Amino acid sequence: MQKIAMIGFGNVGQGLADILIRKRAELKRRHGYEFKVVAISDFRLGSVYQAEGINLKRAIDAVKKKGSLEAYRGGEKGWDALRTIRDCGADVMVELAYTDLSTGQPAIDHCKAALRQGMSVVTSNKGPAALAYPALNRLARKNDASFLIEGTVMSGTPVLNLAMNDLAGNEFKSISGILNGTTNYMLTEMEKGMSYDDVLAKAQKLGYAEADPTGDVEGIDAAGKVCILANMFMNAKMKPEDVRRRGITRLKPADIEMAKKGGKRWKLIGAVKRRKNGDVDASVKPVMLPLDDPLAGVMGPTNAVTFDTDLLGKVTVVGPGAGRVETGYSILVDLLAIERSRS
Amino acid sequence: MQKIAMIGFGNVGQGLADILIRKRAELKRRHGYEFKVVAISDFRLGSVYQAEGINLKRAIDAVKKKGSLEAYRGGEKGWDALRTIRDCGADVMVELAYTDLSTGQPAIDHCKAALRQGMSVVTSNKGPAALAYPALNRLARKNDASFLIEGTVMSGTPVLNLAMNDLAGNEFKSISGILNGTTNYMLTEMEKGMSYDDVLAKAQKLGYAEADPTGDVEGIDAAGKVCILANMFMNAKMKPEDVRRRGITRLKPADIEMAKKGGKRWKLIGAVKRRKNGDVDASVKPVMLPLDDPLAGVMGPTNAVTFDTDLLGKVTVVGPGAGRVETGYSILVDLLAIERSRS
Repeated sequence: MQKIAMIGFGNVGQGLADILIRKRAELKRRHGYEFKVVAISDFRLGSVYQAEGINLKRAIDAVKKKGSLEAYRGGEKGWDALRTIRDCGADVMVELAYTDLSTGQPAIDHCKAALRQGMSVVTSNKGPAALAYPALNRLARKNDASFLIEGTVMSGTPVLNLAMNDLAGNEFKSISGILNGTTNYMLTEMEKGMSYDDVLAKAQKLGYAEADPTGDVEGIDAAGKVCILANMFMNAKMKPEDVRRRGITRLKPADIEMAKKGGKRWKLIGAVKRRKNGDVDASVKPVMLPLDDPLAGVMGPTNAVTFDTDLLGKVTVVGPGAGRVETGYSILVDLLAIERSRS
Repeated sequence: MQKIAMIGFGNVGQGLADILIRKRAELKRRHGYEFKVVAISDFRLGSVYQAEGINLKRAIDAVKKKGSLEAYRGGEKGWDALRTIRDCGADVMVELAYTDLSTGQPAIDHCKAALRQGMSVVTSNKGPAALAYPALNRLARKNDASFLIEGTVMSGTPVLNLAMNDLAGNEFKSISGILNGTTNYMLTEMEKGMSYDDVLAKAQKLGYAEADPTGDVEGIDAAGKVCILANMFMNAKMKPEDVRRRGITRLKPADIEMAKKGGKRWKLIGAVKRRKNGDVDASVKPVMLPLDDPLAGVMGPTNAVTFDTDLLGKVTVVGPGAGRVETGYSILVDLLAIERSRS
């Protein structure tokens, strides 16, 4: 019986809770996986600790109907994140707290506190992953715990676990991918003839792009993911600002047209390569791909990554890059991996 | 220290041995993985048993230069497959023996013998996987052993381990893919304007197609893989002959032209679907795919599979479908998985 603490109970946390409710019987039957969520602590929504296991449906109801976990009947209230981590006795902390992407806080401190006491950590939070993966992974190993972050790159689409386990033993010559769904959607639409500004307005209307689209269109989001890939798989010790970065804002209809005429297609590609001298080179920039490149056919908000390996050549995985359920699922698959490794 | 017995030492076996030689130091350093091959037994090439570990380089040399493992200095000779399995004391048997695809023998008997004594089995041999997966997997579980078969579908490209572990918790609505490289190469060339007969001759010249191409062009090879996917992931109890099957032999240039005009492309698609009544429907047949289907852009001998899942939607993996090194690697990645699960 895996005991789970959830730090953060926003969109992804509730998405995970929905999946756990819906799949409980099936997970037990098909994977022998049993769990209870013993604590939830959210900076805005309050907290509840209940050793016998929180009723997730009632927890969601409390938040949806009353706006706070304080409305949940039963359990102990008022524990902040660090108190929860210290006292809840969970095997795994799921870290989904709102996080400042420039400092990675408070998520990094939450991860450290959990790992130091031998509690495994699962997170889809890009802060700790992009800014502190090497240190947190070391801390996990030292304390015989796991630090799993599948959801930080392409939500639940298997990218990190695939590279770590299913491609183990390969050396990666390069890793390159479409790591941001918003910009890939925009490029797909621009190819149909819309201007950059019109496409951006449409993406904002559809909820793909935020009011301030900088993080997406300037490649900042993709650069964070490139950084994660470099540190996990090329043994780099890189910060997101070390990634050379150019977004899609300067792409004009004439550029799109030129690519089309040459049988090519623009994609915003995040890439990590090992140079001959052993250094790791990381970049995000628009690239004109030939149409037979496995990444060229990836359209709309879909994401994809190609691993160029020494033993298998190129292996590409294509799937969703974001979403409430998809990211919630990324947490579940890491919880299952921890359970497998412990049993 | 994982102790390995190899039953079969042909192309794939020697490919695996090459990788193990080349990667030994790196596997220890990066994955903490140490191994020794304590026995090799091949129906045609003889056998050697050596408890302290066979020198793989010398074993390959013996076969390449003298045509037989009998020329290997040291160790005990003359053990057949079943004696080897019984007496070599390995933790894992790698089953790569030549196998009759209609009966799965002698590979199935080798697998049973190993699993019954709690020895894990790794194989890229389609016989046991397509004809006896449910029974062999049950036998493995009963004896606390593993039965891993990544190499049976798309060689070392992660398909089965991906679906089993990295997509765990999902329900598969359907699985469909390009599961045969020869026919995909042929369709790619036919699209450039060559006739079926000319393309077949070229594929045979390049070594992609065999003198008797029936297994590839009639979809028999793909049907075996569809059967494996159905039994592993949809809980079916299917034989390859239960797969509805039509090959590419009746595709005419006019068909190719018609697809092109409609913005589509022919692919030989192996597919498993769950029907509304719960039954599993399995087929191999040429399908006209719209160009924005993730499988449509997969050209040449490359393979790909799309999993349509309840939580993530569609996830596609694209990579090599065959090859000596690629299939040798499929064995290594399963050996690493067994080591991970034991440590």
